[in-house]
Formats: sequence, C-alpha cells, structure tokens
Amino acid sequence: MSRWQPDARGRLEQAALELFRDRGFAETTVPEIAARAGLTPRTFFRHFADKREVLFAGQDDFLALFIDPITAAPEDTAPFELIARSLDAAGDYFPHDRRPFSRVRQTIIDAEPSLGERELGKLATLKVRLGEVLRDRGVPEPAATLAAETGVTVFHLSFQQWIAPGEDRSLATIARERLDALTSLVAPGRSVGGTSE
Amino acid sequence: MSRWQPDARGRLEQAALELFRDRGFAETTVPEIAARAGLTPRTFFRHFADKREVLFAGQDDFLALFIDPITAAPEDTAPFELIARSLDAAGDYFPHDRRPFSRVRQTIIDAEPSLGERELGKLATLKVRLGEVLRDRGVPEPAATLAAETGVTVFHLSFQQWIAPGEDRSLATIARERLDALTSLVAPGRSVGGTSE
Repeated sequence: MSRWQPDARGRLEQAALELFRDRGFAETTVPEIAARAGLTPRTFFRHFADKREVLFAGQDDFLALFIDPITAAPEDTAPFELIARSLDAAGDYFPHDRRPFSRVRQTIIDAEPSLGERELGKLATLKVRLGEVLRDRGVPEPAATLAAETGVTVFHLSFQQWIAPGEDRSLATIARERLDALTSLVAPGRSVGGTSE
Repeated sequence: MSRWQPDARGRLEQAALELFRDRGFAETTVPEIAARAGLTPRTFFRHFADKREVLFAGQDDFLALFIDPITAAPEDTAPFELIARSLDAAGDYFPHDRRPFSRVRQTIIDAEPSLGERELGKLATLKVRLGEVLRDRGVPEPAATLAAETGVTVFHLSFQQWIAPGEDRSLATIARERLDALTSLVAPGRSVGGTSE
C-alpha cells in the first residue's frame, strides 16, 4: 500500500462504484471508498470534490466533446450533419471497455432520484449549449433548438441502448442507426442508409 | 354566496392561480382558495384532490388527446403523420382563450421545483404512452420511441413558444411550423411547406 500506485483515480472510481452498487449511494462514505481503494480520504479529495463527482466528473469534457466537432466543421456544413458529427464524437468518449462502468453507474443513478435529476440536468445543459453553438453558426430558430433537442434525444436513446443487456455494438453505430431511423421517420423513402442492417 | 353558482370549478381555478402567483404556491392554503372564490373548502375538494391538482387536473384527458387521433387513424398512416395528427389535436385542447391561464400557470411552475418535476413527469408519461400506442400499431423500434420522443419534444417547444410574450398564433400553427422545421433539418430540400412563411 505504501508503494506508488499508478492509477489512484481509477481505483477510487472502481471502489466507489462497487460500494454505491452494493450498499447504496447515500450509505457510502468517502473514508469507506478510500479505504477500499487502499488510499486515504485526502487522496480521494485530490481527485473528486465529493462522492457524487465520481459519477459526474468530466462534465466540461463531456460538453466539449459534442461542441468541438461543431465549431470545427466547415462553414457550410448542414445543421443535421453537425449533429451527426457530435454523436460520432460521443462514440469515442464511450469506448467498449467503458460499458461495464456505464452500466453499473446507470443502476446507481436509477436507484437515487437526486442523481437522476443531476443526470437530467447534465443533458439539459448539453441541449442549451448545443443550441447556443448552432445559433452562433447562424442556424436560425426554431431549427437550432430543434436540432439541439433532437441531437440530445438521439444521444440519450442511443446511450440507453448501448448499456442495454446483451448490446455490444459501438455507441457511434447505434447513434447512426437512430439518426437513420429519424430520417426515415420524418422523410420516408429518404433513408441515409448504411447502418440499419 | 348562497345562490347557485354556474362555474364553481372555474372560479376555484382562477382564485388558486391568483393566490399561487401573488403569494407563492407553498404559502397558499385550500381554505384561502375557497374563500377567494366565495366557496367552501368542501366544494374545493369536490373538484380537486389537493391544491396541486388545480395545476395538473385532466392528465387523463391530456394523454387521450394525443393518443386518440393515433388509434383512430387509418391503418396505413405513416408514423410521422400520426405525430402530426396528435399535435393538431393538442391545438384544440389549448384554445386562444386558455393562453393567459397557461402563462400564469407556467410562471407558478417555474417558481417551484417540485411542480417543475411534476410537469416533466407528465411529459415523460406522455412519451411512454405514445411509444406504446405506436408499437401497438406495428411501428417497429427504434422508430416508435424516436417518434414518441420527437413528438413530445415538438409539443413542448411549441407550447413554450405559444405562451411566449407577444405570441398570438395558435398552438397547432406553431407545432406545424416546428414539424416543418424538423423536416427541413433532417431532410433539407424536402420541406412539407405550408406554415413557415
């Protein structure tokens, strides 16, 4: 325990998740998390502001992930293509080896209403930011807000499928399938094709 | 006070709304609402289970409004057209003379987080029910859930616009404009036309 450990943050995350799952979020304390990871509370607080942040760390990275591909896109990129690029980027943020973590995390969030609200708040913030960045690019209303809402809805539904039991396709594949389904829904006969088979 | 009053329910609603707006939802009691309407608490409870139900009465009617046009539509009606019919029906439920009530109601809900959650819960229930009725009609996944989510998103955004200051178009017109914008977004060049100019 005294020798240098290469991934304190990862171990704290793992320990917290196991305790939240087994004992409940409210019943778990920071000293317990630290002890299970073989570390001190002081080390815990170097990585996370509080126990909730184990589940919600990286919100700025999360937002940037969706926003950056939009700001980086050529000026004449169509709004719906901007949303597609956002969702592709989200796929990189949630690689396959992150899926077990995401599944357990969702179980914990579903069990604790205040965490569910925090999660919805995160998605609401994403909608607002996406709407802003689309308007900054000159997308008019109501298209900008519709695109932002639709993008986050597709992401949310895709993410739910990504963590569903037995699902092993990538998040980007699932999101593309849903964008494709949305296109078929709104404009039948005009499928963008490619991923739905 | 003693003579028969033709619209006790409407007067209770009006009195409650004014008190919620002026004093706050939490600070207003049922006896105060009844007194302001010139009625007794006993009469209040014949119309509403509690003061919150003044703001959320008619949930079954609200759901039926969206669901009925879908179950009544010809078998080969496209899913997106089913959603459009739902939104048209919603327009009838929110006529122009209801707009002042809806505006004050929204102010009250925005001021009280528990009411905001109740409102979101109502929309979440609508999403679930719409998804069920679309699947019952044979719409496959993920199209059914996407259509339900998209329909409720368009309704919600349209409703926000309908109660915006200075807005005087009908809810059905605003919703059609947004469905049109969604079509243009998802399939550029394939506008359904008609309402956006």
